[in-house]
Amino acid sequence: MSGRVLVTGAAGFIGRYLVPLLADAGNEVHALSRTVRPGELDGAATWHEVDLLEPGASRRVLEEVRPARLVHLAWCTEHGAYWESPDNVAWVQATLGLLREFGASGGQRAVCAGTCAEYSWDRSPCVEQVTLLEPATFYGVCKDATRRVSAGLADRAPFTLAWARPFLLYGPGEDERRLIPHVARALLAGEPAEVGDGSIVRDFLHVEDVARAFAAVLDSEIRGPVNIASGVPVTLRRVVEMVSRAAGAPELVRFDAFPRRPGDPAELVGSAHRLSGEAGFQPLIPLDEGIAQTVQWWRGRLADG
Amino acid sequence: MSGRVLVTGAAGFIGRYLVPLLADAGNEVHALSRTVRPGELDGAATWHEVDLLEPGASRRVLEEVRPARLVHLAWCTEHGAYWESPDNVAWVQATLGLLREFGASGGQRAVCAGTCAEYSWDRSPCVEQVTLLEPATFYGVCKDATRRVSAGLADRAPFTLAWARPFLLYGPGEDERRLIPHVARALLAGEPAEVGDGSIVRDFLHVEDVARAFAAVLDSEIRGPVNIASGVPVTLRRVVEMVSRAAGAPELVRFDAFPRRPGDPAELVGSAHRLSGEAGFQPLIPLDEGIAQTVQWWRGRLADG
Repeated sequence: MSGRVLVTGAAGFIGRYLVPLLADAGNEVHALSRTVRPGELDGAATWHEVDLLEPGASRRVLEEVRPARLVHLAWCTEHGAYWESPDNVAWVQATLGLLREFGASGGQRAVCAGTCAEYSWDRSPCVEQVTLLEPATFYGVCKDATRRVSAGLADRAPFTLAWARPFLLYGPGEDERRLIPHVARALLAGEPAEVGDGSIVRDFLHVEDVARAFAAVLDSEIRGPVNIASGVPVTLRRVVEMVSRAAGAPELVRFDAFPRRPGDPAELVGSAHRLSGEAGFQPLIPLDEGIAQTVQWWRGRLADG
Repeated sequence: MSGRVLVTGAAGFIGRYLVPLLADAGNEVHALSRTVRPGELDGAATWHEVDLLEPGASRRVLEEVRPARLVHLAWCTEHGAYWESPDNVAWVQATLGLLREFGASGGQRAVCAGTCAEYSWDRSPCVEQVTLLEPATFYGVCKDATRRVSAGLADRAPFTLAWARPFLLYGPGEDERRLIPHVARALLAGEPAEVGDGSIVRDFLHVEDVARAFAAVLDSEIRGPVNIASGVPVTLRRVVEMVSRAAGAPELVRFDAFPRRPGDPAELVGSAHRLSGEAGFQPLIPLDEGIAQTVQWWRGRLADG
């Protein structure tokens, strides 16, 4: 199915990959962003500079665009701060308002970004509609509450709703304060990179695969929650080793430089069964290749500037 | 503690009893209502005609009034329809917006109306922070989700928040389509009243006691959920018998006129321990007296018009 799609958070980490993907698939893409549009994506979409937190903003844009489909990625994502920020409440309101207006304007299919932080982090792998929903963070509480209400709203509206829960993602353009950019940039600059003991286990997907997974979920008939996950557990130690190998400076990594953060779960991995079975999605980028490509991208950035 | 209190839903069933109660206790009461003010309450409060679903409405009124305390009763309550209405979503948004603005305007203490419909209805009595929260209705889902987010918001705001969960209430002014008015009006008119088998068990509080309980919770230091309940199980058969005795026409009651509604729980009673222990509240009106007074009120209404 192609047609008119509205993407919120379109200038964000996932959005920048999803917009050209949807455009290449023949969709008429309308991209929403609070800030300036990324210049390199100009041709792929019609850009709307919209702050969804402004009262009446989503009504105006939905009445103008009247999209058949919606991918809602926007939320507060300020590194470090977003886990416990009161701004999460404004995003609950804005998301519910957006979905109501989407229904009122004749929308048919929506995919919202949830989070792996909706799950209880006591057990892994996290399986949709099986694993307990007991968020450990306010971000998780707000996403979870939004999903509970949105699911019932979709039952009473003309559109179907899938709720996509990304696990960890990485790739070119990731916030440089996050693990992989932090290590890559330090090593490429010839400086030591301090990390924890590396024992914790996570689930990584390259952002290009994440964007492809969102597109696949949008095209699928999935209703309700679906993990955006690889299903493959990997220790952070292994990830850091891949980065250091690609950067060519393994001797500069300082493991055990700080203790594990309290509340950080030992293991957080998503089941990928629903994503593969019902959206037909398979990742294209193996972790080692994706990390090598990401380090190469940082090498180019650092050389440029 | 007295001072400036804002009451939303002030012209509703609970609000009409709560406004004069708070005024009598020395508070400067500001009463919000979407519709016209009830004339008989004019003197008890400053009335503001405000539709909280209008964008920007709560900001305007909170900047103007700047209350130290808030009792938020407003929500969609259209008899029969509200259980599954999509309007519940707008009230999630409006409630979160109201609480954010309350914090931003310097508010210190808030009480919100939750509902016994937040609980799983499989077990009774319902005990705060023990009984499973698994709403069977969309109304319950939306109140529950609002509470989850609001609790975290209050942790990050200058005010404390109690979440009051009323069970069944009754008294003069109740919607005439509900059980007690329905039976009372029929019998007082000399007509038969058709009811179910009367076997289901509920928890009733007179609306005057409910209003007193809200005032007690407002004055207490309770944070989080608190039942507004009698803690006393009573069958609907017994309630109907009290009504028919007060109306003097027990022979006109037709029990077993219709089957139990699917999804109606066999028993729904709230623990009153937290309400009595931490807010010091005890009901003043025994059920038989309250019902007799209510039937008497309907007798007067029917005689008048």
